[in-house]
Amino acid sequence: MSTTHPADPPHIGTLNSGATGTIADVAGVRVGHCTLDAGPVQTGVTVVMPHAGDPYREKVPAAVAVINGFGKSIGLTQVDELGVLETPIALTNTFGVAALAQAQIREAIAANPRIGREWPTVNPLVFECNDGYLNDIQALAVTGEHYRAACDAASHTFARGSVGAGRGMSSFDLKGGIGTASRVVDVAGMRCTVGALVLANFGRLPTLTVAGVPLGRMLAERHTSGGRQPEPEKGSIIMLIALDVPLDARQLRRVAMRAAAGFARTGSSYGHGSGDIAMAFSTAYTLPHEASVFRLPPLLADAHLDPLFQASADCVEQAILDALWQATTVHGRNGHVRLALRDAAP
Amino acid sequence: MSTTHPADPPHIGTLNSGATGTIADVAGVRVGHCTLDAGPVQTGVTVVMPHAGDPYREKVPAAVAVINGFGKSIGLTQVDELGVLETPIALTNTFGVAALAQAQIREAIAANPRIGREWPTVNPLVFECNDGYLNDIQALAVTGEHYRAACDAASHTFARGSVGAGRGMSSFDLKGGIGTASRVVDVAGMRCTVGALVLANFGRLPTLTVAGVPLGRMLAERHTSGGRQPEPEKGSIIMLIALDVPLDARQLRRVAMRAAAGFARTGSSYGHGSGDIAMAFSTAYTLPHEASVFRLPPLLADAHLDPLFQASADCVEQAILDALWQATTVHGRNGHVRLALRDAAP
Amino acid sequence: MSTTHPADPPHIGTLNSGATGTIADVAGVRVGHCTLDAGPVQTGVTVVMPHAGDPYREKVPAAVAVINGFGKSIGLTQVDELGVLETPIALTNTFGVAALAQAQIREAIAANPRIGREWPTVNPLVFECNDGYLNDIQALAVTGEHYRAACDAASHTFARGSVGAGRGMSSFDLKGGIGTASRVVDVAGMRCTVGALVLANFGRLPTLTVAGVPLGRMLAERHTSGGRQPEPEKGSIIMLIALDVPLDARQLRRVAMRAAAGFARTGSSYGHGSGDIAMAFSTAYTLPHEASVFRLPPLLADAHLDPLFQASADCVEQAILDALWQATTVHGRNGHVRLALRDAAP
Amino acid sequence: MSTTHPADPPHIGTLNSGATGTIADVAGVRVGHCTLDAGPVQTGVTVVMPHAGDPYREKVPAAVAVINGFGKSIGLTQVDELGVLETPIALTNTFGVAALAQAQIREAIAANPRIGREWPTVNPLVFECNDGYLNDIQALAVTGEHYRAACDAASHTFARGSVGAGRGMSSFDLKGGIGTASRVVDVAGMRCTVGALVLANFGRLPTLTVAGVPLGRMLAERHTSGGRQPEPEKGSIIMLIALDVPLDARQLRRVAMRAAAGFARTGSSYGHGSGDIAMAFSTAYTLPHEASVFRLPPLLADAHLDPLFQASADCVEQAILDALWQATTVHGRNGHVRLALRDAAP
Repeated sequence: MSTTHPADPPHIGTLNSGATGTIADVAGVRVGHCTLDAGPVQTGVTVVMPHAGDPYREKVPAAVAVINGFGKSIGLTQVDELGVLETPIALTNTFGVAALAQAQIREAIAANPRIGREWPTVNPLVFECNDGYLNDIQALAVTGEHYRAACDAASHTFARGSVGAGRGMSSFDLKGGIGTASRVVDVAGMRCTVGALVLANFGRLPTLTVAGVPLGRMLAERHTSGGRQPEPEKGSIIMLIALDVPLDARQLRRVAMRAAAGFARTGSSYGHGSGDIAMAFSTAYTLPHEASVFRLPPLLADAHLDPLFQASADCVEQAILDALWQATTVHGRNGHVRLALRDAAP
Repeated sequence: MSTTHPADPPHIGTLNSGATGTIADVAGVRVGHCTLDAGPVQTGVTVVMPHAGDPYREKVPAAVAVINGFGKSIGLTQVDELGVLETPIALTNTFGVAALAQAQIREAIAANPRIGREWPTVNPLVFECNDGYLNDIQALAVTGEHYRAACDAASHTFARGSVGAGRGMSSFDLKGGIGTASRVVDVAGMRCTVGALVLANFGRLPTLTVAGVPLGRMLAERHTSGGRQPEPEKGSIIMLIALDVPLDARQLRRVAMRAAAGFARTGSSYGHGSGDIAMAFSTAYTLPHEASVFRLPPLLADAHLDPLFQASADCVEQAILDALWQATTVHGRNGHVRLALRDAAP
Repeated sequence: MSTTHPADPPHIGTLNSGATGTIADVAGVRVGHCTLDAGPVQTGVTVVMPHAGDPYREKVPAAVAVINGFGKSIGLTQVDELGVLETPIALTNTFGVAALAQAQIREAIAANPRIGREWPTVNPLVFECNDGYLNDIQALAVTGEHYRAACDAASHTFARGSVGAGRGMSSFDLKGGIGTASRVVDVAGMRCTVGALVLANFGRLPTLTVAGVPLGRMLAERHTSGGRQPEPEKGSIIMLIALDVPLDARQLRRVAMRAAAGFARTGSSYGHGSGDIAMAFSTAYTLPHEASVFRLPPLLADAHLDPLFQASADCVEQAILDALWQATTVHGRNGHVRLALRDAAP
Repeated sequence: MSTTHPADPPHIGTLNSGATGTIADVAGVRVGHCTLDAGPVQTGVTVVMPHAGDPYREKVPAAVAVINGFGKSIGLTQVDELGVLETPIALTNTFGVAALAQAQIREAIAANPRIGREWPTVNPLVFECNDGYLNDIQALAVTGEHYRAACDAASHTFARGSVGAGRGMSSFDLKGGIGTASRVVDVAGMRCTVGALVLANFGRLPTLTVAGVPLGRMLAERHTSGGRQPEPEKGSIIMLIALDVPLDARQLRRVAMRAAAGFARTGSSYGHGSGDIAMAFSTAYTLPHEASVFRLPPLLADAHLDPLFQASADCVEQAILDALWQATTVHGRNGHVRLALRDAAP
């Protein structure tokens, strides 16, 4: 691979991609964005819908792996304890978490007025990265309306790169943002689809590694010959993994942990100031809110998880590259600019 | 002990209380409330200030123990990773978390405009319980102004019972809320003060145990003779422990875990639907935001922690009783009433 | 309750005991002991068999809660990851762990010669407490033969008190050891049995609390009038909870955590030097070693766990009392004696 | 890089190696092996000594990160709770853990006869991988004498590859074993040395990645043309990281977690059947057994950890390559052979 930027990133690993190469290859998963692009406000909201139903009444099994906990996401404590989601998954900038959590609460109550009364409260779930280099994060521009707009836009087809929560994100001193990928594997007689969606906002240029090639070092040498100094790591990454495989929360935590492998291969050592958080969820079944027993489909035995682990790691690595390849250059607050990889490596 | 309600709860354990018997016996700690008492809105905000300085620039060592994670607090992930607080500790109702987190962010930025730009973002820290029985929690009545008011009110002397975040809370089918206690112990030649503050919102009446006496069962027999059915557990408890002892975050996590002991002795088995979360922090030193090294005072060796563990458990148990004894009867939404223990056990 | 020792300990809580009041009320569970009583060697082995089959080929779902990790048990890492047992559960003294782990490996290989070759290795599981006050623990007297003898003795009826692994254990400066209890509850239309078995080796006399009554303080006043000083906490407790309820490993971890509540009510604040570890397992189904999918029975929904949580806490508290009540006075190494409660409180 | 095997593996990353390129570049650290090479018995023991003193009386701060917990190491529970080592670190095969733990106990008692009597017990610490492909692991050949021999052999210079605990280990369907590396970085005005030692026993050939190059895929294509089928992952890796930097246990856990990054870059997705465990320890200070306070040197602030994180990840990656490059071909039980990389890629 030359340092000349090709049209598409290399295919990671030996497994095949799904039909669209996105997390929406996992049947039922939809993604929506709301992008704020107004001068110094360069930010937004991305939502991932695990299924088309009411996420509170039909809870999706899920689990989190905290790779590095310098992060301000909300909702992880309850996911750890109960192993389920009960809202759409929201992504935004660090200071937008509260507004989105509030919106999730309002919408859950609107759909289920017994919440917080006869029923327990609802667990908002919002992940974040700090887009403060490009975005005037102190403006607290994200609101519940943006959350609603992102939900309304949710679809099996969706944009990537400098959109939604990814609008203001940086990666490897380049423009980061939303990336996605999928892999299809046959396991124990089942055709399984694994998808990932990342919000990539981490990494210093010299460490960028693309399918094993130190692309960042090559680019950095060119750039720093102009005297620019690479910046210290202040980023984060959120890595969502969806599977159509029947797994329980314990197994999903194992899957989520594999995000750390794909992530590392792009050049990260999990920086101190980085909130590196992975979540895996299964669309193979739901846990009804009012059930007295949970009737699960046959779960895949742990001894057969390896292909899914590989697919998860590969999807995350591929999704990070996708974010870089799909990103467009963004001009933000205070004259700050992040070049897209396509513009940085012409 | 008869079922007649005495003026003061029994003294728990064999250790002596501090001067005021509150968490503010730990030098520097202050507590403030903002109480919302307006018809169906019966809720509020309580803040605990670890010291008088800027909590972001002078970070306090802290650690969390999640006893049961059915809870929606924000900020725990980063406390786990970094072992420090960087805001005042806020308590409110479940659906007020977002508003307070937003306020903490705004105030941190106002005090330190570099936050989210050259400096990393700030980690809001808000704990919650569900006061939906008395309070119209769906009204989302708590705002950043209430947070500010609670901060402004912070003092070494403060009210307990049906105030602040405790306004709408229930415990043991009685009125719960804010309780506090302290203990003084001599350890390794140091005079140590341990204080606790709880937001008590858990428990069914029949399990209430006061210094080992099944007071709740006695009261329940009287009450249910009138046909009222005890309700299922839907509560939570937040347990904060302050110490003036030099401990690191690992040791503070051990201290926080001991809250589970004092809590259990009042009659809880950590109900499924309860967010039972403890946090311990030390006021013995701070970690400056811009330091390149942390110069810690000599830390107490683990082999000497037992008296502090006992003090922590006893403080939490005593603080729960304090909440019950200090509470006043509150009339809330939809004709709901929670009797204070003093009114229920005349 | 007077300080006069009654024939039986008080019944803890409001739930009914099972038929025999032991962990063996959970159908299929058996317990066996091998007791070493030879001068300064006062120790032994206790095993708990979850079912009558091969524990490696039919794995039992299980989870651990570490209340205080000052302990040397082996096997917890893999139970955490995979959520299953694959050997009988063994209990012994701290320095006997290795010998028993070795024996478990040998026996698993004998039963399944493919272990460590085509099949993965086997995860030994041995819990321990330090019986060094009575027992010459430095003699490393426990061997694989004692493990085998305990397995051979496993039965639905079994002795308690100063037997098996409990032979040399101390609790509350009195004789501790093996205790057990059970509770029966109806949950979601199912008749559920919960059983506990503890190896009690913790506590200082002044903190001993029996059904809320500070029995230890009363006894200590009598004893210390003779000038004897209570000793610092150096003990531990292992708490095993069996249920015949279909739960997964995540839920079993929640059950195991409730041991902390029952344990605390007997007077512990989880001492620094105490290895306080709980494990819960379900006998409702097994996970076959060579299955490619796990077909689970309908799992009880989390919202219905509260009665099981209460039963678990109550069983553990009752089992600790049982250990004290069943214990007989033991004379050990170096003239050390531990009086049974029945002898200390005549 | 061609598929021709060069004399030395490529240098990983941009940081400089220490003087010897081993974990012993961290002053005071020594490594010893005892190798068993007798027909079907191809196994051994490796020990890492953090300092020259008594490890029980001068405890070294340490922390563990469990990447994948399919492992049978002993001692992790207490390291988690207390954040210290109190024995040399031992490595061996899965079924040798018990024998080594027993030896550690005996030696600790011999050096400190108060252990298990007036003093608490000692926490053995033994890590393991399954060398059952080459080694007759069922023979349980490892004994305490081998542990002693490895301790006696401990030195600042030591062999790597097919020695000690690495004797029977496999990696990437090739011969694995012991590897090591070091890096030197300047942080906050301090010259810091980071070293790693790994016991590499993981990976399938097609995933082997060397400095980003898919060497394994190239080799596999050549090999499988002969019809041999790559085997499923059944391995493990133990990754030890030593630093001469003053860090506490919370920070060391963060360092240990970075092993996951270096490990992933060699081609692992953390296989299901792999016990992937990392431990980091600091040699910058010790915690005396009988101290009532811990006087720590100034700790490096977390904001300055990034170079150490990078060094840790790079050291682990380099150490894995070192294991492959240093290994020699071993013939083991049942005609099994593992080719050294140098022999497989001539």
